[in-house]
Amino acid sequence: MNEIDLIEKIRKLAAKGPRITIGIGDDCAVFRPKPNQDLLFKTDPMIEDVHFKRDLAPEIVGHRALARNLSDIAAMGGDPQFCLVSLSLPAHLVGFERWIDGFYRGLMKLAKRTGMALAGGHLAKADKLFCDVIVCGSVPRGKALLRSGAKAGDALYVSGRLGKSWESRFEPRLALGRSLRGRATSCIDISDGLSLDLFRLCRASKVAAEVDHIPMVRGVTLDRALHGGEDYELLFTMPERLMPPQGTTRIGTIVRGRRHGAVRFQGEPLAPRGHDHFQR
Amino acid sequence: MNEIDLIEKIRKLAAKGPRITIGIGDDCAVFRPKPNQDLLFKTDPMIEDVHFKRDLAPEIVGHRALARNLSDIAAMGGDPQFCLVSLSLPAHLVGFERWIDGFYRGLMKLAKRTGMALAGGHLAKADKLFCDVIVCGSVPRGKALLRSGAKAGDALYVSGRLGKSWESRFEPRLALGRSLRGRATSCIDISDGLSLDLFRLCRASKVAAEVDHIPMVRGVTLDRALHGGEDYELLFTMPERLMPPQGTTRIGTIVRGRRHGAVRFQGEPLAPRGHDHFQR
Repeated sequence: MNEIDLIEKIRKLAAKGPRITIGIGDDCAVFRPKPNQDLLFKTDPMIEDVHFKRDLAPEIVGHRALARNLSDIAAMGGDPQFCLVSLSLPAHLVGFERWIDGFYRGLMKLAKRTGMALAGGHLAKADKLFCDVIVCGSVPRGKALLRSGAKAGDALYVSGRLGKSWESRFEPRLALGRSLRGRATSCIDISDGLSLDLFRLCRASKVAAEVDHIPMVRGVTLDRALHGGEDYELLFTMPERLMPPQGTTRIGTIVRGRRHGAVRFQGEPLAPRGHDHFQR
Repeated sequence: MNEIDLIEKIRKLAAKGPRITIGIGDDCAVFRPKPNQDLLFKTDPMIEDVHFKRDLAPEIVGHRALARNLSDIAAMGGDPQFCLVSLSLPAHLVGFERWIDGFYRGLMKLAKRTGMALAGGHLAKADKLFCDVIVCGSVPRGKALLRSGAKAGDALYVSGRLGKSWESRFEPRLALGRSLRGRATSCIDISDGLSLDLFRLCRASKVAAEVDHIPMVRGVTLDRALHGGEDYELLFTMPERLMPPQGTTRIGTIVRGRRHGAVRFQGEPLAPRGHDHFQR
């Protein structure tokens, strides 16, 4: 199987959205935006031996490679539009074609369910599996949910439960994100652990936070729920008087803080110990 | 230096374009398109030991990582808008900070010269250097140059000279691409060798081609000029009656062909022997 056959195979698997006027097969993908839309862009790669092991089922790799990016689109309140997939594969990979099939099946299943086109991408050879998915979402002009709008006195909420295992096939919180447009004052997705992502939100908003308790997956340690990565839940703030959406839990309150980003958990300082890609 | 410091450093280096309403530092980058624009998207990674060796100067890696994507924007007749950079780095890389500095300096020099913003991206750890640059360009609605419009009787042109060394700091042909909007019937950039890219153009256009002679870099073999990759020149077709732009050379003619994609060079069949990422 050569590159032309492989691309033809992927083209057949790819859904073409109504706004993708040119999809796979030319020098670039062409997207025709609507007027009064702002577009959201995110890229977040998955690398063998960093984010997954080769024995993880390719359907799960494909699902997660897209889902982790969609989680960021959800955190900005966006509607998914299209994705590009840059896939680098070891040439000697045993079960090469089967792996590719599984990967794109996992990815396209989620893409179709969330109304996304696969608009283009790239194939290359590498020593390790490397999947870089790029997603584009949209929001009505000026309506993106930012990290930077939390105010002292706002209530702090989280969706779902924290401490998930990183092999799970999680669902990005797109409907929740959309429902928060015009209501939440700030929002971020928890991809590197609550402690680090709450620190980021507070720093961007120039506030501090008090956390009382957190909803946890059954059987995990408090340490994992506070600092473990890969939860892909939404963390957001709203004025106290507004009703929170279903499936979310109030975990604390935004406060004025001498140090921006300072977080306290049950009265004690909580260090941002989540995942830092470059901590040595 | 941890991840937060690194991102702060990159944020300072990054130019923020007028249409990037949210750049580095939130969950996604936000881009506000103009009405009546079509947007072009391309991703094309550069991987250590596949596309370059670690001893290649980081300024050149940064330049090329962006330039190879801009070459595709040029081939569609686009105006560059913004890029995202997904960079994966070995944690133990000697001269780590210096390498990152050089990489972004090389990339940003070209970005600024071509009017692009660096809107966002991602940093991760990996065993090898892996740079995935994603670019967005724009064209007036419906004006993208495609591979698929060549007609029998059209003249076939190429820019510059073929057979460049792959370490060169080439300039993507953006001004030429723009000047071809509304004039060229088809266009592609030569990234995998003339023989393979002309085959692709002819297949997409359902035509064949006769090539007479090609402009070559001094001192290279005909084999390299016909089949070598990494030229990043534009290959395009125009009706014979139109004047070709300066700096381009007519190399042949588009013909009706029994086999779509069949190319003849000086009367003999020319096989698409250019770079196939998956040929074994």
